[in-house]
Amino acid sequence: MFESAEIGHQVDKRHWKEESVRLRHALLDAQYRLLHDARAAVVILVNGVDGAGRGETVNLLNEWMDPRHIRTEAFGPITAQERGHPEMWRFWQVLPPKGRIGILFGSWYTDPILAHVRDGEKHDRFVHRLERIRQFERMLVSEGVVLVKLWFHLSKKAAKARMKALESDPKTAWRVTPQERENIQHYDRFVRVSEEALRKTGIGEAPWLVIDGSDPAYRSLKAGQYLLDALTHALKRPAVVPGVPESWPPTTPMRGLDERGLLATQDYGRRLKRKGYEDELENLQGRLALLSRDPRMQKRSLVLVFEGMDAAGKGSTIRRITQALDARFYRVVPVAAPNENERAQPYLWRFWRYIPAHGKAVVFDRSWYGRVLVERVEGYCSTQDWMRAYGEINEYEEQLTEAGAVIVKFWLAITPEEQLKRFKAREATPHKNYKITEDDWRNREKWPLYERAVEQMVDRTSTRMAPWHIVASDDKLWSRIEVLRLLCERLERALDEVPARD
Amino acid sequence: MFESAEIGHQVDKRHWKEESVRLRHALLDAQYRLLHDARAAVVILVNGVDGAGRGETVNLLNEWMDPRHIRTEAFGPITAQERGHPEMWRFWQVLPPKGRIGILFGSWYTDPILAHVRDGEKHDRFVHRLERIRQFERMLVSEGVVLVKLWFHLSKKAAKARMKALESDPKTAWRVTPQERENIQHYDRFVRVSEEALRKTGIGEAPWLVIDGSDPAYRSLKAGQYLLDALTHALKRPAVVPGVPESWPPTTPMRGLDERGLLATQDYGRRLKRKGYEDELENLQGRLALLSRDPRMQKRSLVLVFEGMDAAGKGSTIRRITQALDARFYRVVPVAAPNENERAQPYLWRFWRYIPAHGKAVVFDRSWYGRVLVERVEGYCSTQDWMRAYGEINEYEEQLTEAGAVIVKFWLAITPEEQLKRFKAREATPHKNYKITEDDWRNREKWPLYERAVEQMVDRTSTRMAPWHIVASDDKLWSRIEVLRLLCERLERALDEVPARD
Repeated sequence: MFESAEIGHQVDKRHWKEESVRLRHALLDAQYRLLHDARAAVVILVNGVDGAGRGETVNLLNEWMDPRHIRTEAFGPITAQERGHPEMWRFWQVLPPKGRIGILFGSWYTDPILAHVRDGEKHDRFVHRLERIRQFERMLVSEGVVLVKLWFHLSKKAAKARMKALESDPKTAWRVTPQERENIQHYDRFVRVSEEALRKTGIGEAPWLVIDGSDPAYRSLKAGQYLLDALTHALKRPAVVPGVPESWPPTTPMRGLDERGLLATQDYGRRLKRKGYEDELENLQGRLALLSRDPRMQKRSLVLVFEGMDAAGKGSTIRRITQALDARFYRVVPVAAPNENERAQPYLWRFWRYIPAHGKAVVFDRSWYGRVLVERVEGYCSTQDWMRAYGEINEYEEQLTEAGAVIVKFWLAITPEEQLKRFKAREATPHKNYKITEDDWRNREKWPLYERAVEQMVDRTSTRMAPWHIVASDDKLWSRIEVLRLLCERLERALDEVPARD
Repeated sequence: MFESAEIGHQVDKRHWKEESVRLRHALLDAQYRLLHDARAAVVILVNGVDGAGRGETVNLLNEWMDPRHIRTEAFGPITAQERGHPEMWRFWQVLPPKGRIGILFGSWYTDPILAHVRDGEKHDRFVHRLERIRQFERMLVSEGVVLVKLWFHLSKKAAKARMKALESDPKTAWRVTPQERENIQHYDRFVRVSEEALRKTGIGEAPWLVIDGSDPAYRSLKAGQYLLDALTHALKRPAVVPGVPESWPPTTPMRGLDERGLLATQDYGRRLKRKGYEDELENLQGRLALLSRDPRMQKRSLVLVFEGMDAAGKGSTIRRITQALDARFYRVVPVAAPNENERAQPYLWRFWRYIPAHGKAVVFDRSWYGRVLVERVEGYCSTQDWMRAYGEINEYEEQLTEAGAVIVKFWLAITPEEQLKRFKAREATPHKNYKITEDDWRNREKWPLYERAVEQMVDRTSTRMAPWHIVASDDKLWSRIEVLRLLCERLERALDEVPARD
């Protein structure tokens, strides 16, 4: 895979001058058009062999373009804060929004490759991490990110010659770090492992671009040209066409075929008396409080998801949970329609931001499941988008789980009759008046579409690691107790297990 | 993921009658239209829990439709013949062509799940096999296969009740096999592992369809309806639009930028005298003959790929190799444009058919690389198609390698001047006249496009497990010796290694 990059390309001075000026103007122009159109984000991954000009290229690109609109990030070893989060978390934090360019110096490839080459991480684990990267990159591209994956290469001979030349001159010897001196010992193994990484992640949507790093002029022009091509590609990207809300598979209703779903078959008649409720509530809140302070919680985190039709009682249920908790332990994240910043990012981005560190909890009042609920039903995304979302969400939750998160998801289920009663009560009560809008009445008309979307969501994303609990909530008291009970039980079981990762 | 399938759906007799008649007509009609249009193939995977009606559904679908155009395959344990091949080989053998329906009873999911549940295969290996399946299914869908992934489910309670009912009646007790009796002991683990399989392979392009298997009428109507939806979907599939031959990334040529590629930088001046050639040839052919008879070869297979511009000498080089071999050991596969049967299948299909068993060799005179060479340059496939092909080909070769194949790929490189000379000689020689056609002259005009395609092919698919050897072939004698030498060396190294799999 590195054959073409070992030929020894060169560019003479005159051409370097002419071409670099042309390229610089073209890049700057494309950068401003990207900023103006804001149709796609461009992410440049800078990887490769020591001494092949990665750092110099990053500096040059910043010099050639307007650095105010470029976000350059270098990734070193994983920090303590990062260790409490899933592996990909730190990369989600720095994704550029649409219209911007991000340069990642040392990317999601660095750690898997080095861990396998130097730290003895097993081949199976390496392959699994590459697979995760492939899914991640596929998702990014589907979400409007143009990925420019640059690999700067030097042959072993060229790498050794470069190091020798630098070391032999006292003025430049400092440029060779002890780490580089160690790395060159591993050159063969590093290149072999890198080749496997490139092979397994060279997907059609985001191919690897290998650059011969031996001549600075050549590699700079080549990198600049690749970037210009990517920017041009990003500018041609069609604006996203919202999809029609069709279900998949597009099942025709069949007369007489019993299609009672998960929601219709809940037992909505269960009730709890006020007196029994208050005893139970106190009891369960105490149990939950103790669990939240359990020392084993320092190796886990807690992610709660509440979804439900309008007026299902999400807010009041969440309050019964947070009443039991120390304010420093948890955070409640109410999720509404994405704002402008959020729309400029992949849909999971705004949720990655709130992922709790070990020892913390986050309660989502609505969540990433909006993708397969409201966005699907209202046609805010295309059919392909929400169809691929189930897999992306499962993968997301797997990453959280592996990093120690306990994920508990509740669907508060009410009947259409109960919703109507609550809507009317809200309209009649002055201080609850603000809680009912035109939108609520409009959504209500789409009840059957939402119902079908909810059932598919549960069928495709209720997993042993992150199960959905459907809680019949026509009676608020019964529902709150049920939620608290399920939560305590789940948390107890999770704390009894060995943490997923230290 | 099985929540909706444990509700206990039922259909009464009257509706069963009405709906099954309607469905039967609709299915038969859709089947004939599919056959007529031949736009897509439909593959139905039948998986699930014992006793959930898999076999009955397969029989029913064959009864409802025209079984002459359905290929039903049941997969049992891997046979001795299958063991000498890559794992996915047996499934490639039974893929239905466009226009047809294939029913796979026990599919590529069965063995990974059972190996993990029963035979103690490690979780890492399980995950890796699922990942391979995901790539395989993505490729199938891109190549025009509509996948209907049915999972027939029974709750533990229902599964036990069914078995008890059968066993209690002497007339039906025989229907419970010892295997089923053993399987029910593993029910929980089987369902847990299956859930992970479904979660990891539920891709947007081919979602899982879980069916409650407890009521025969319900499950039959449901399966039939899913299949009808899939057939309707297959019939709506747009005819494939051939793509324009554009390169990726679409690099603008840069003045002065040294773009000498791999082909231009070969040393075409190397020559060999006839006398030295004949000694060397005899010597190397002897070495190769011994290698082919080496007992260690019984655990390996050999896959040779020859590619090169027209008149590069592929045929005569291959003859120098086969002269050294026993006719029972090898097979030469000349690859031309795909015929009608082959065009009705994914492009890799016709090559999977020739994969050698252990102890055998296959020599491909042109190969699957046509996808990224002639099909790319001539626009016979879309840009997306050949861009994803690099990854698919690497994955294909990885599977062969894991199954013990030694893959050696040769690009016989000649200069345009040498080609012209050979073309003219062919025209002038009566018995070689047939070897030169209009096509050859037309291809020659596209030399620079082919050159670029070849270089990208080498950069993206030359890997340690299956390297490309570019052999300068302006001098036929030198080239033949070089090929034989490289082949012997590679084979010697491979036989010295432990076979990839027993």
